[in-house]
Amino acid sequence: MTDESRLESLDALVSLCKRRGYIFQSSEIYGGLNGFWDYGPLGVELRRRIFDSWWSTMVSRREDVVGMDASIITHPRVWEASGHVESFYDMMVDCRECNRRFRLDHLIQDAVDNGTLDAIFPDRDNSAAPAEGELPTRCPACAGELTEPRQFALMFETRVGAATDSKSVAYLRPETAQAIFVNFKNVQMSSRQKVPFGIAQVGKAFRNEVTPRNFTFRSREFEQMEMEFFVHPDEERQWFDYWIDARHAWYEQLGIDPTRLRRRDHAKDELAHYASYTTDVEYQFPFGWAELEGVANRGNFDLTQHGEHSGKDQAYFDPTRNEKYVPSVIETSAGLDRTLLTVLADAYALDEIAGEERTVLRLAPHLAPRQVAVFPLSKKLGEPARKLADDLRKRFHAIYDDSGSIGKRYRREDEVGTPYCVTLDFETLEDDAVTVRDRDTTEQERIGLSALGDYLGERLRR
Amino acid sequence: MTDESRLESLDALVSLCKRRGYIFQSSEIYGGLNGFWDYGPLGVELRRRIFDSWWSTMVSRREDVVGMDASIITHPRVWEASGHVESFYDMMVDCRECNRRFRLDHLIQDAVDNGTLDAIFPDRDNSAAPAEGELPTRCPACAGELTEPRQFALMFETRVGAATDSKSVAYLRPETAQAIFVNFKNVQMSSRQKVPFGIAQVGKAFRNEVTPRNFTFRSREFEQMEMEFFVHPDEERQWFDYWIDARHAWYEQLGIDPTRLRRRDHAKDELAHYASYTTDVEYQFPFGWAELEGVANRGNFDLTQHGEHSGKDQAYFDPTRNEKYVPSVIETSAGLDRTLLTVLADAYALDEIAGEERTVLRLAPHLAPRQVAVFPLSKKLGEPARKLADDLRKRFHAIYDDSGSIGKRYRREDEVGTPYCVTLDFETLEDDAVTVRDRDTTEQERIGLSALGDYLGERLRR
Repeated sequence: MTDESRLESLDALVSLCKRRGYIFQSSEIYGGLNGFWDYGPLGVELRRRIFDSWWSTMVSRREDVVGMDASIITHPRVWEASGHVESFYDMMVDCRECNRRFRLDHLIQDAVDNGTLDAIFPDRDNSAAPAEGELPTRCPACAGELTEPRQFALMFETRVGAATDSKSVAYLRPETAQAIFVNFKNVQMSSRQKVPFGIAQVGKAFRNEVTPRNFTFRSREFEQMEMEFFVHPDEERQWFDYWIDARHAWYEQLGIDPTRLRRRDHAKDELAHYASYTTDVEYQFPFGWAELEGVANRGNFDLTQHGEHSGKDQAYFDPTRNEKYVPSVIETSAGLDRTLLTVLADAYALDEIAGEERTVLRLAPHLAPRQVAVFPLSKKLGEPARKLADDLRKRFHAIYDDSGSIGKRYRREDEVGTPYCVTLDFETLEDDAVTVRDRDTTEQERIGLSALGDYLGERLRR
Repeated sequence: MTDESRLESLDALVSLCKRRGYIFQSSEIYGGLNGFWDYGPLGVELRRRIFDSWWSTMVSRREDVVGMDASIITHPRVWEASGHVESFYDMMVDCRECNRRFRLDHLIQDAVDNGTLDAIFPDRDNSAAPAEGELPTRCPACAGELTEPRQFALMFETRVGAATDSKSVAYLRPETAQAIFVNFKNVQMSSRQKVPFGIAQVGKAFRNEVTPRNFTFRSREFEQMEMEFFVHPDEERQWFDYWIDARHAWYEQLGIDPTRLRRRDHAKDELAHYASYTTDVEYQFPFGWAELEGVANRGNFDLTQHGEHSGKDQAYFDPTRNEKYVPSVIETSAGLDRTLLTVLADAYALDEIAGEERTVLRLAPHLAPRQVAVFPLSKKLGEPARKLADDLRKRFHAIYDDSGSIGKRYRREDEVGTPYCVTLDFETLEDDAVTVRDRDTTEQERIGLSALGDYLGERLRR
């Protein structure tokens, strides 16, 4: 466990993910589709465990939060009321020479971060950062001339029904939050919840990003885990503080290295139009600190907008306070794909075992997609080992593997993060016991078959 | 339990679903979006339990099936290879008078079923059913003239990236199956599975249906649960038989009335272009027998098509047979929304308790979204009752309710299908026991608090 090195660039992780069935490029045999990813057999299990952890923490174990699950294609008026149709754009510039495309804000920020402002602003004194509205003129890649910035609509559009007039336009939701707001009354009344309470949703959202990048960190199709907590306007700050603490703690519960997590308050000029304050939880990726989750005070902006646009009053009568008001909303907004990428990046390590280098995913045992691997020491022991794997599969994600040396089999499981390997040897036939090997310490322990289920169960529970 | 009546029309169920938070119309405050539905707090929990049951049966407990989860927006060439771009259309006709729109095949079939062929074919001898190609001329609603049939594309189209040329067109997948086929090699190699084995996926699919109908039965956005099982061509029939038995059995395990389930083999002329034979599992809804799931022998059609279109050989080398071949595929294709509708429709009942009519959802206990409700007999017992609900919430989906008479609280829980209600009374403070009431028998049993968790656990497990 000494001289361990961590992930230095996403490339090593991308390669492991493809090779071992965590994540593939979407439509790879057709050359891929930029910004879209598919999850393989291990990836889908890890997704499920992260989803389960979020849902159990945010919904199942709470009296004051209920779940919902709305359609992805949504009525266009929802996005008019929310402001997305009018203002959900990014500005982009193209290079006239090499045709590369850049998101304007990323182009400038990258140049600030890398100290290369001179390359994109050749005619400017770059001792100070550019002010808003100052436009770069040169391509950082080929020094070609850049176009004027153009608007790039982030919402994917489609048409519903057979008509082709503008009435049939509908949008793939760019966030799950709005579906919660438009269902506020239905959910509150049917669940008989009283403010303060929350509505949680996990589901796909779509953004036609100018430049998807950093593997699954910024993709065009992604799964959000959002919760909108409805409170009396006087209680905004106390619930905001409560939720930023709770959400930060969740990442630590996933086993993420706490020294790579931090909080960052949004500056006034980066706040979204609906938010009066926002704090992000960030993670230190190989490519820098980046947002995992935003906790925002959205005030009553959304419910008020939908009340006005739909003509359906969204005010709530509070029986405890004997007062009618439009609730304020504290939002917690996380990404399932981004959390999964964080879990993998944080777990990735290279160390040395008996003079041999190994790649190991130090996943928290309760998240590991494959929980136990069963090896017969010799193929002659295949039958009882296979039977053991079948038994364990009733409680755990278990595989049977009889191919290659035991050392080679350990390496394969280390690389995908399997916390426990169980080897059945000739002695097992005498003593009804097996050798259990721990992924992290590589230590081995002899455990009786009758105690094995509970031994693993205890260690694989959160 | 005598004189019980079952669901006679979907209307009663639609109303219960909205009132109690199972299912809402999408974007309801904006007038709704035809063919789209949102799941409320109880609906989303029921979805999760059905998903878990399917995944556990089809993936977790099996050595020979692995999962995956692909993107919804897919490369357009996938749908060229699969045949969808060319042929995934429905024929529709419109009424020139009242502007009603009909799917041609449904229009004719409904008239055959209802014996009303004369209305739509006034100029024909309707003693025999119309042959293929014979076109109805009159609207069944207003007797207006019908248009010629037109093609109606079922795939939703969108554009990816900033270009607006035809290269940027992409489709929302109309089925999850193709994502499995294009990932066949990546999944097989990374999971080290050998034929015969299966790949399973649960995810959204989208079809721009001409006439969505029957509540969530035929909607435009729906969640599929598909599994593609890859076999040697000689073993198609034996695996087909295996899977149709297994899939039929699953619906019975969900507690669906076996007398309302049947199998139906597709006739030669209704087979999809890729299938050599197909058998459906059907359920007897209030609106008639309708498909829940199709099990199909797709042969090697899809892998062969993708091999040709991508130029990437999809043949598999079978180490056991020492033979290279393109595997055949047995597909099992179910719908999560449709299963959920079936579970609710089948569970719905009206009976009489002590002279009073009640609505009850007789959900299988392991599927019930709310598992237990805790009532204090008097509000004075609120504190210990609330504490009990909090304790139970660690293991079960539990609520606390102190509003209205106990009888009224029972009725509320019966209507959403809560299998057990637990009442805490003044005696509880003496004997540390509570009254547990069974939803179906309405019988009550006194259970010690220390035994309650296991008592419920046993009964709520499948």
